[in-house]
Amino acid sequence: MISSRKKAFEPFLLFLFSYFCYYNSLQSETELERIKNSVKIELRELERTRDIEQKKVENVRKNVLAEEQHLKQLKSDVANYRGQIQALERELRQKAAIQNPPVMPPERILPPLDIPTIPFRANIDCSRGDCFDYTRCPLTGGFPVYLYPITHIRDDAKRRRADNIQNGLRQMLQIVEDANTACIWFFISERVDVLDTALIEHWHGDGRNHVILDLSGESSWADIGRASKMGTGLAEVLPFDLLLPESIILDQPIWEISPLMTPIHRAHRLVFQFSAPPAGSVIVNQLALLKKQPDNVIEPIPCGAKPWANCGTLKERLEFLSTSTFSLVLVENNFADVSERLLESLLTGAVPVVLSFSGLLPLPLDGVIDWSRASLQLPLSRLPELSFLLNSMTSGDIFDMRRQGRFLLEEYFSSEVKSVYSGLQMLRHKIGVIPNPYEQSQGVTTNIEKFYPPTLPAEPNFLDEEAKDEFVSIQSLSPLPSPVFPQNYTYLIKDYFNSVGPFAHKMIDVNILSTPLPSEEKFYDKQLPFDPICGGAGGDGTEYQNALGGNFPREEFTVVILTYKRDDVLIGTLSRLVNQPHLNKVLVVWNSPYSIPDSLQWPAIGAPIEVVIPEKNSLNNRFLPFKNIETEAVLSLDDDTHLRRDEIEFAFRTWRENRDRIVGFPGRHHSWENGGWFYNSNHTCELSMVLTGAAFFHKQYSYLYSSWQPPEVKALVDEFMNCEDIALNFLVSHLTRKPPVKVTSRWTFRCLGQGCPEALSSTDGHFNERHYCIKRLTKIWGYNPLLYTGYRVDSVLFKTRLPHDKQKCFKFI
Amino acid sequence: MISSRKKAFEPFLLFLFSYFCYYNSLQSETELERIKNSVKIELRELERTRDIEQKKVENVRKNVLAEEQHLKQLKSDVANYRGQIQALERELRQKAAIQNPPVMPPERILPPLDIPTIPFRANIDCSRGDCFDYTRCPLTGGFPVYLYPITHIRDDAKRRRADNIQNGLRQMLQIVEDANTACIWFFISERVDVLDTALIEHWHGDGRNHVILDLSGESSWADIGRASKMGTGLAEVLPFDLLLPESIILDQPIWEISPLMTPIHRAHRLVFQFSAPPAGSVIVNQLALLKKQPDNVIEPIPCGAKPWANCGTLKERLEFLSTSTFSLVLVENNFADVSERLLESLLTGAVPVVLSFSGLLPLPLDGVIDWSRASLQLPLSRLPELSFLLNSMTSGDIFDMRRQGRFLLEEYFSSEVKSVYSGLQMLRHKIGVIPNPYEQSQGVTTNIEKFYPPTLPAEPNFLDEEAKDEFVSIQSLSPLPSPVFPQNYTYLIKDYFNSVGPFAHKMIDVNILSTPLPSEEKFYDKQLPFDPICGGAGGDGTEYQNALGGNFPREEFTVVILTYKRDDVLIGTLSRLVNQPHLNKVLVVWNSPYSIPDSLQWPAIGAPIEVVIPEKNSLNNRFLPFKNIETEAVLSLDDDTHLRRDEIEFAFRTWRENRDRIVGFPGRHHSWENGGWFYNSNHTCELSMVLTGAAFFHKQYSYLYSSWQPPEVKALVDEFMNCEDIALNFLVSHLTRKPPVKVTSRWTFRCLGQGCPEALSSTDGHFNERHYCIKRLTKIWGYNPLLYTGYRVDSVLFKTRLPHDKQKCFKFI
Repeated sequence: MISSRKKAFEPFLLFLFSYFCYYNSLQSETELERIKNSVKIELRELERTRDIEQKKVENVRKNVLAEEQHLKQLKSDVANYRGQIQALERELRQKAAIQNPPVMPPERILPPLDIPTIPFRANIDCSRGDCFDYTRCPLTGGFPVYLYPITHIRDDAKRRRADNIQNGLRQMLQIVEDANTACIWFFISERVDVLDTALIEHWHGDGRNHVILDLSGESSWADIGRASKMGTGLAEVLPFDLLLPESIILDQPIWEISPLMTPIHRAHRLVFQFSAPPAGSVIVNQLALLKKQPDNVIEPIPCGAKPWANCGTLKERLEFLSTSTFSLVLVENNFADVSERLLESLLTGAVPVVLSFSGLLPLPLDGVIDWSRASLQLPLSRLPELSFLLNSMTSGDIFDMRRQGRFLLEEYFSSEVKSVYSGLQMLRHKIGVIPNPYEQSQGVTTNIEKFYPPTLPAEPNFLDEEAKDEFVSIQSLSPLPSPVFPQNYTYLIKDYFNSVGPFAHKMIDVNILSTPLPSEEKFYDKQLPFDPICGGAGGDGTEYQNALGGNFPREEFTVVILTYKRDDVLIGTLSRLVNQPHLNKVLVVWNSPYSIPDSLQWPAIGAPIEVVIPEKNSLNNRFLPFKNIETEAVLSLDDDTHLRRDEIEFAFRTWRENRDRIVGFPGRHHSWENGGWFYNSNHTCELSMVLTGAAFFHKQYSYLYSSWQPPEVKALVDEFMNCEDIALNFLVSHLTRKPPVKVTSRWTFRCLGQGCPEALSSTDGHFNERHYCIKRLTKIWGYNPLLYTGYRVDSVLFKTRLPHDKQKCFKFI
Repeated sequence: MISSRKKAFEPFLLFLFSYFCYYNSLQSETELERIKNSVKIELRELERTRDIEQKKVENVRKNVLAEEQHLKQLKSDVANYRGQIQALERELRQKAAIQNPPVMPPERILPPLDIPTIPFRANIDCSRGDCFDYTRCPLTGGFPVYLYPITHIRDDAKRRRADNIQNGLRQMLQIVEDANTACIWFFISERVDVLDTALIEHWHGDGRNHVILDLSGESSWADIGRASKMGTGLAEVLPFDLLLPESIILDQPIWEISPLMTPIHRAHRLVFQFSAPPAGSVIVNQLALLKKQPDNVIEPIPCGAKPWANCGTLKERLEFLSTSTFSLVLVENNFADVSERLLESLLTGAVPVVLSFSGLLPLPLDGVIDWSRASLQLPLSRLPELSFLLNSMTSGDIFDMRRQGRFLLEEYFSSEVKSVYSGLQMLRHKIGVIPNPYEQSQGVTTNIEKFYPPTLPAEPNFLDEEAKDEFVSIQSLSPLPSPVFPQNYTYLIKDYFNSVGPFAHKMIDVNILSTPLPSEEKFYDKQLPFDPICGGAGGDGTEYQNALGGNFPREEFTVVILTYKRDDVLIGTLSRLVNQPHLNKVLVVWNSPYSIPDSLQWPAIGAPIEVVIPEKNSLNNRFLPFKNIETEAVLSLDDDTHLRRDEIEFAFRTWRENRDRIVGFPGRHHSWENGGWFYNSNHTCELSMVLTGAAFFHKQYSYLYSSWQPPEVKALVDEFMNCEDIALNFLVSHLTRKPPVKVTSRWTFRCLGQGCPEALSSTDGHFNERHYCIKRLTKIWGYNPLLYTGYRVDSVLFKTRLPHDKQKCFKFI
């Protein structure tokens, strides 16, 4: 045995020894020469023979290898094609199965007004909700409202208010001129205690489906038959009555006036400023006990108003409320007495603690709006326990209520018009009529019709490192748009009025909130185009690559690329999408200041390409809800983004499990430095934003970004020509309270410096703008909604050692 | 240059040549001997010199390497210790800041009964909810109920019912003997139309806080003052009245009778069997139109009962309803007329379509129970539009309603006792009193006090491949249990009555449902022990390894290990947990049939070890809610599980982002073969279960597994001594409608065969049992709740190329 260290030395010894022998051989030259030559010849012969044999063997081996390779390739091709064929057959069967025509709504045929509707009950009782006539409002007839003229209103101020309300409603509702086609007749009254219904033209004897808006804040009403009351002073609220708050008149947007929602605990725990209490009130003693708690400020302020009233100027009151975590809202009589205090508390984030005799006092639009999510409602007899109760509230609960309160205020009660509008919307909701849909963005669309062979090689797909154009795998036979308005009528049973978001007033065509079906339903319902892995058995890469899998029916996605003056780069990016599985369409948003050059050679990628020209060059165009987008899933790409097809496919599948989140590649985070938020693009183990240069998101967010969020957000983006990606992350995290999902390592983009260079982003100025955007958006939303995530999503068998008969899900990710 | 092929041949030639030389040298022996010796000496000298030089060089190299290694080690140690010191300082500061003592509840001092409570209103009005006396029910006083004797009930059947109800309530509620300490006085009456309240002992003049349960189904009641009505026949439901359904009497558990919830669409769309309609009913024509639709079965069945009544035997009716997707529930008068039909529809999964005059008919325990999630409620005048409406419902909506309806039935109305109990619980909820907590499991606990040095090396932590015991990183200074009962009072404002799960009747000490706070609150609230990465700035591995990060306050987890007769293996597994970060405690569940051997050398791992001995050997013990578990996070381990510390730490952080899901390592799936579900442990790209041999889950699920889910589940586990892991996955997916989360590749477990061998699992029998369990659990839950997930979670910078000044989050995962 030779030790391993000596082994290295051995050839050297051998060589020396050989040399020494050779030297020896020279001594007997003539004799040795012969032998040497003979041996040399022999040696050469040997070498030659060996060489030939070696070559033969190698050739054979090479052939064997080639054949094996070939066979493997063939087998893989066969498997692929078999999979494709099966997938296509499945798709065909599914398409054949979906033959039920869409349900056609019944026509809107209104019965004559003078025929009584189903006279089922002897005594119609409005307190049981009998008074509404549903036949005027067919499910599919929308929500047409007739506005009575307001010429009967004599008081100038009230006339102006009425005029303002009607103008507002005209913008927001479907207003009809022909009273006979209305579902609701809307009458504004300056006095309801002496209202003469005989003078109301379309009263039809009982005032059915009339809504009488009271401008006087009156609590005693004349008999109004089957009509509904709307106002701030209702003493009793019947099922179709609409209690509104009195409006606060503000000269700035709410987000500008409202203090930040954090810190959650403020200088005071509970505050209450009021004019003198009524004589002999039994709760004065209880209030005195509350006042003894050092955190509370319970103080009378002399002002001539009625007992327990709100005093001081609006500015003073708002400043005072802003110092407190909770605000006491004490009701002795009617809601009207505290309406102002309630809204001011919501505005300042002081969570309202509404104390009323029974604890069941109706609050505005109660029954549809769930006030328990934004306020505490307690009976007066809980006053002694109030401190205990408030102490036991967690920060999380307080924050949730504060955020919800601000939402209710902004969404439903931010002005008098808005309150009236919300009241009518609530009525629409109650009678089971769906809201109008959000409008889609139009732009000018050019359908690309002439295509050229792609100039760049396609990116790898599932298995192949080398691009293979003929490998289409689970490409669809024909486009598969997502179903639109799938939940028209169940839309109404969802709790949309109380979900932060824009769902109460308008409807979104695509549905983000669906829960998955039980997994066996895939095999029962032929109308739902499910695509389970290996017919439901599951499997490794071989089967996974031939079916979409997941918990939701088969679907596709739309690529949206914003482009600006980089036509060649754009064409390159498009080329790489050739035969991308599940791609429904590519929509190019043409921000360039010139029209589309005829010379552009659009690549034939196997999916339609449409170019839409928006009204103006804006980064906000990236998120417009274009009518061209026919899928729920949107993949937003920069015009120079370089993603591989397998990365895109994997991100799409991941998004299908996280439909309400942004799912994508480049991660960033918000970092806290020197007591404030900054934008941060360093390498990090926790991220809180995924940039929309390469990210999937739900089309719903396009509507919300464009039409629902405070308009100041879009203005900010336009001002700096920056931050649209940050803004979308804020919006989505605000709505969901979830961070985004980062997928794979984005192998094609390896940026090793401090923050990757982007087209607009190489300068310090760019970063400073982004810092500013974060601060500004935090102010607009009232808090920083971003949340951290500390993981990345890869495919299941990524970097896993597998037995030789198993395939990875994706070769590289 | 020698070609690579020839290179291999060279030593062979050299050898031949050497041999030839050697042979030659023998020819001229004497002459050559001298030269040979001289050369030999020279050679030896040469070799020695070379050897010495070689060694010198190697030594120098070794030294350089060692020094470099040392330096690197020192640097890493310095960084680690600096991080540790900072983390400990943070922790100290936080602990110092948490100085507010826990809130003490006010004492329960009941006012004398004859003193009127706050007489704030002149006229108390029960319809406004004024009648309840909250002072008898302090927030912290629980919900004591006094049961009146039932001796006054004359009818035998009713007496038996009353007795049954009272016995049931005694099991479930806090029943007091001293009437003066009660919050609620509960009186069962056989006739309420002529009830003489003067005979009710503790009436106190007005019957406040009394609940009168009517056994007669009567709708006309005698005057009962301020008392609440409870019964099936209420014509009007005031705020504190409790409308109950009539009970169905079943001889089997609901899950056994109820048909599977899939397929979602059944043979018929809508069915309605009824006795003759009332003479001259206006809706008969409308029903005739419905009947014309081929999918509907609308048919009168002659039976002598009242109009629209339910006919046929229970068995016939259930069979009939099971054929339909929807069931028409038509109400002409009171709810009582359709109570039976409503429950039977819920039982069979035929979604109830409740048609009443106004569409606002009160349903059982309305106001707390949200019936719109389980039924459609429509006014009669929508009858012509009904077909359109039902056609437009999506499969998902129908399934959600069916599942919700079954939940309502099982949770609230499965028997008469359960209905009465639910009514009282609803009353408790309305007055703001929290439910009793779930009971924790006790067992016999042994605290291990004598520890020995671990025998096995610790697993790697964050950075180090080699175990280093002194590396503790973010280990806590002292145990940090999760806060218990954090949301006592806000518990009431959550919509727990309508969330599938056990939240309405009992309270869980730890809170799964909290939403994260805004991320800036970390820096404002010193009482919440947040631990942001690098003080909020974020960072790469260096900073990440020294702070817990995430969106929730700092917390720890408990390891629960079930062990059975493998003491050595157990000790080994424990040893590997030495200095595991964030480990609060290890709880060993001792299933072995013998007591703990004194000879066991428990390893000193830096966290307490407790051994709990359950009542009997059962795999269900794995999920008992032991009082020893003081954290929300539970890491369930098999006694032979081999996980690395960095894997555990990463899974813990991932669980903190997915607190309601099972987060762990070994993935499995349910696969559909031959029209049924099977268990599958093959390599797969989609998984639907994570086995609890190595998984994190929330302690809440221990309560639900042990006390809430149908008892047949635990019986199944005991029968086969198998499937407890499958059962937990079913439970969690049923509650959340989410799949589990798989983390990393579990590097330490590399099993390359078909399904990894487990202790109990090597036989075919084991697999067959698991197939059977899946089928059985599907029947028990009414559907297969498992869902697929197609990704795996790794750390953010996993397998990412980094600049040299950056550190990965974890070196290996």
